[in-house]
Amino acid sequence: LFGAALVAYGKQRDPLPSWTEGPNKASIIEFVETVTTPGSPKFVPESRRIAAIDNDGTLWTEQPLYFQALYLLQRIKEIAPEHPEWKTKEPFASVLQGNLKKALSGGEKALLEMTLATHAGLTEDEFSDSVRRFLSSARHPTTGHLLTDMVYQPMLELLDFLKANNFKVFIVSGGGIEFVRIFSENLYGIPPERVVGSSLDAKYEFRDGQPVIVKQASIDLIDDHAGKPVGIHRYIGRRPILAIGNSDGDFEMLEYVTTGDGPRLGMIIHHDDPEREFAYDRDSSIGRSARVLDEGPQRGWKIISMQSDWKVIHPEEKK
Amino acid sequence: LFGAALVAYGKQRDPLPSWTEGPNKASIIEFVETVTTPGSPKFVPESRRIAAIDNDGTLWTEQPLYFQALYLLQRIKEIAPEHPEWKTKEPFASVLQGNLKKALSGGEKALLEMTLATHAGLTEDEFSDSVRRFLSSARHPTTGHLLTDMVYQPMLELLDFLKANNFKVFIVSGGGIEFVRIFSENLYGIPPERVVGSSLDAKYEFRDGQPVIVKQASIDLIDDHAGKPVGIHRYIGRRPILAIGNSDGDFEMLEYVTTGDGPRLGMIIHHDDPEREFAYDRDSSIGRSARVLDEGPQRGWKIISMQSDWKVIHPEEKK
Ligand SMILES: [Ca+2]
Ligand SMILES: [Ca+2]
Repeated sequence: LFGAALVAYGKQRDPLPSWTEGPNKASIIEFVETVTTPGSPKFVPESRRIAAIDNDGTLWTEQPLYFQALYLLQRIKEIAPEHPEWKTKEPFASVLQGNLKKALSGGEKALLEMTLATHAGLTEDEFSDSVRRFLSSARHPTTGHLLTDMVYQPMLELLDFLKANNFKVFIVSGGGIEFVRIFSENLYGIPPERVVGSSLDAKYEFRDGQPVIVKQASIDLIDDHAGKPVGIHRYIGRRPILAIGNSDGDFEMLEYVTTGDGPRLGMIIHHDDPEREFAYDRDSSIGRSARVLDEGPQRGWKIISMQSDWKVIHPEEKK
Repeated sequence: LFGAALVAYGKQRDPLPSWTEGPNKASIIEFVETVTTPGSPKFVPESRRIAAIDNDGTLWTEQPLYFQALYLLQRIKEIAPEHPEWKTKEPFASVLQGNLKKALSGGEKALLEMTLATHAGLTEDEFSDSVRRFLSSARHPTTGHLLTDMVYQPMLELLDFLKANNFKVFIVSGGGIEFVRIFSENLYGIPPERVVGSSLDAKYEFRDGQPVIVKQASIDLIDDHAGKPVGIHRYIGRRPILAIGNSDGDFEMLEYVTTGDGPRLGMIIHHDDPEREFAYDRDSSIGRSARVLDEGPQRGWKIISMQSDWKVIHPEEKK
């Protein structure tokens, strides 16, 4: 029965045309077939067909800088007139002087400081308007493409394939939950309530007599490393059966997902294509991936090579 | 066009057969018609048809005690042997002596203390198994019915009506998010990820070498009063257009929802039926409702009388 389903499947339209034929593509299709075949001992009911998928470096590019960092930098310049003290205060001073490298030398801590300073005090509507404005025109520093065109075509196909098989697909991002929620529906067909991410505290307040939600200057959840399973628990409430990430920040999510009972699939997108995208792993400050590559294979995780598993990277290449 | 839709509608099966004909039922049907009629100036696209609905006292009974409090009491008795110190420590001592009134005289604070003491340290699977066991047999103290039969038939019909009109229906409960998630899918057809509620912090840990989520003895979110809009912001990420509650703990949620732009509907379930359910409002410690009744009508919120708006209360009455 199961083999027959696979054969029947092969006669239909290829659901993953941008994926190279080979063991990784076959693993994905076999996994989806297995959990959706009624009567199969590994059948998983729709309510438990949950997929958790990282965003930066997994659904879209994250080099040379997280796109949310590009937003932060632009916003710092925008509101600098209200903050004369930034002229002499790092990392803001370096941003305003155009010295990105120095501004970002403080790593995650500097990014967090910039996030708190630029996001806190905004209402939810002000923040989403601001991000929407940014994304409508922001371009990638090296390709010149709109940031929103820097999504990965093979992953868009995989999202469609999962949704067509009645998976509930969630984004589980180390990035800001509200930032990702702005574009997740348009870009990926994933509605805001299916986005899990890092967050600031929020407060119910009044502005001009109207009730609003205001972002605070304190951290609610860092949805990275062990924070990813915690975020999944908080927002989804069930252990997913499929997880995809690209960096060591996804290790715990894949560990949590793939050690559950029943059929499980974990995948790591490996950025090994310097020609068509970027090549980086264990030595990169952005998207560092060492442990996932070292321990992943023995845990049964599939390492997806962007160079050899993906026929195209971004949708533009199809034109 | 709009009138025609209503007329056409009236010819179809009544979507709310347990609701008495009258202005409140008409308001619900008119609201749903308005936001779902293409071309109507008040049309709302599906992605924004979001409903936020309280649980205790709105979807099921909450008297003489929140059902989660019944669970707490049973769990305290279950694990008392591991806690010899409870014999002399309130509120646990009173629970173990069967003096509920005294045990609960500490109000919300005592309930919270019992929650932390009984929930903390459980893994997510241990907790859900424990709640599932409890709900499979727990009966209501005065009616003797299974707790899961104490849902409100008119609200089940309303949930179906909203879902049939492509609303995304969320529970927004002051109760524990994980507690409600156990039964929301079976009882209401609302999956776990569409439940917003109060929560404890959680941590990613290892037990017997397996990764698990463990509940901590610290509060993450109190999803009541101003915490409800904050919970909505956190979990849903968009302002709902419809909110239903029954107590002053829902005031801010209804305020937040009904002050947004475009068509909005707020409803308060008023417990005024001592014969068929319970009658309580401004003087009740559980489900206290004064401000919602005093200010609701001038804000356009519909006050639903259980006595006169609902033909039946619980599904059993239909038999
Ligand atoms: Ca990533
Ligand atoms: Ca209530």
